[in-house]
Amino acid sequence: MVTQTKSDMLLYVGLVHYPVYNKNYDVIASAVTTLDIHDISRVARTYNAKSFFIITPLSDQKKLVQRVINHWTKGYGASYNPDRKEAIELVQLADSLEDAKEQIRRKEGVSPICIATDASESTGKIIGFDKARDIVIKGIPVLIFFGTAWGLHRQVLEEADYVLEPIYGPTEYNHLSVRAAAAIILDRLVGR
Amino acid sequence: MVTQTKSDMLLYVGLVHYPVYNKNYDVIASAVTTLDIHDISRVARTYNAKSFFIITPLSDQKKLVQRVINHWTKGYGASYNPDRKEAIELVQLADSLEDAKEQIRRKEGVSPICIATDASESTGKIIGFDKARDIVIKGIPVLIFFGTAWGLHRQVLEEADYVLEPIYGPTEYNHLSVRAAAAIILDRLVGR
Repeated sequence: MVTQTKSDMLLYVGLVHYPVYNKNYDVIASAVTTLDIHDISRVARTYNAKSFFIITPLSDQKKLVQRVINHWTKGYGASYNPDRKEAIELVQLADSLEDAKEQIRRKEGVSPICIATDASESTGKIIGFDKARDIVIKGIPVLIFFGTAWGLHRQVLEEADYVLEPIYGPTEYNHLSVRAAAAIILDRLVGR
Repeated sequence: MVTQTKSDMLLYVGLVHYPVYNKNYDVIASAVTTLDIHDISRVARTYNAKSFFIITPLSDQKKLVQRVINHWTKGYGASYNPDRKEAIELVQLADSLEDAKEQIRRKEGVSPICIATDASESTGKIIGFDKARDIVIKGIPVLIFFGTAWGLHRQVLEEADYVLEPIYGPTEYNHLSVRAAAAIILDRLVGR
């Protein structure tokens, strides 16, 4: 069942709420979706990530995230559902991508390799899943991050070390939810 | 990017709301989560499924699902977000697993092979992802289905033709949301 240990892996996951686009390609700070916290933290826990950063500069949104964290790690939820606790314990807040990178640097002593994800293939240094997998299992800190709303700002993609190729099945359709995309990507990178 | 056509595939996806367990292992009919409809229909569309059955005997829950279908395929949502329309068009209602199988049989002329999914490995005829993949790409009708709440009733697992092995990453943790599990499983079976 468990085929790999990958105990050296220093994988961090981020969910970016700013800067992202809305439907009209205005740059916005998106609202946090609490189900993203639950679904992606469980994916992060399954694939042995060190932390899952919720990235937002908005203080009311950070308060919301902190309330979710408290409920499931210290409040009633912690005893009601210990599996959920184990996942939510990975959640950390960051004001910005820079802040997330700095938190990783302070912990690991070295800045992470930053891998952005995007459903298009238009901007940045695109890499395939095989190459990304090689980077992730190397044992160096890696931050893989996902956009919300209509996707990561172009500048974020340009500044990332790499942009992961989009997910395709046997069709041209690539409009997955970020929850589904994060699950598939972590599985492709770490799952086998 | 698109590496396979798999045009012969006759894959159907189901989300079962009855009979499933609650936290105390009572048999219940779970409530429909609208986000499941959105996330899993997009996964189904990505991986070229023919239909995505929401399986529930409860008439109020069926009405809710029908409202979501109407909004995104005929109402304002259809013009607001055509990609969502394309996914939600796959959604169909079924009263029971038997009903879903019968709908497939009427359409395809033959009953589907039924593959259940479960996070444990305790009941039924367990198969691995490789074997399941072989079945799915054979061009015969296949219904792969997922439980909600605390999982599919034991009898459903026993009656299925196969039960797919659980998803593991490099850890022992296997408490994914059904949205994440469906995404990973379809990707493992059809994505590459």
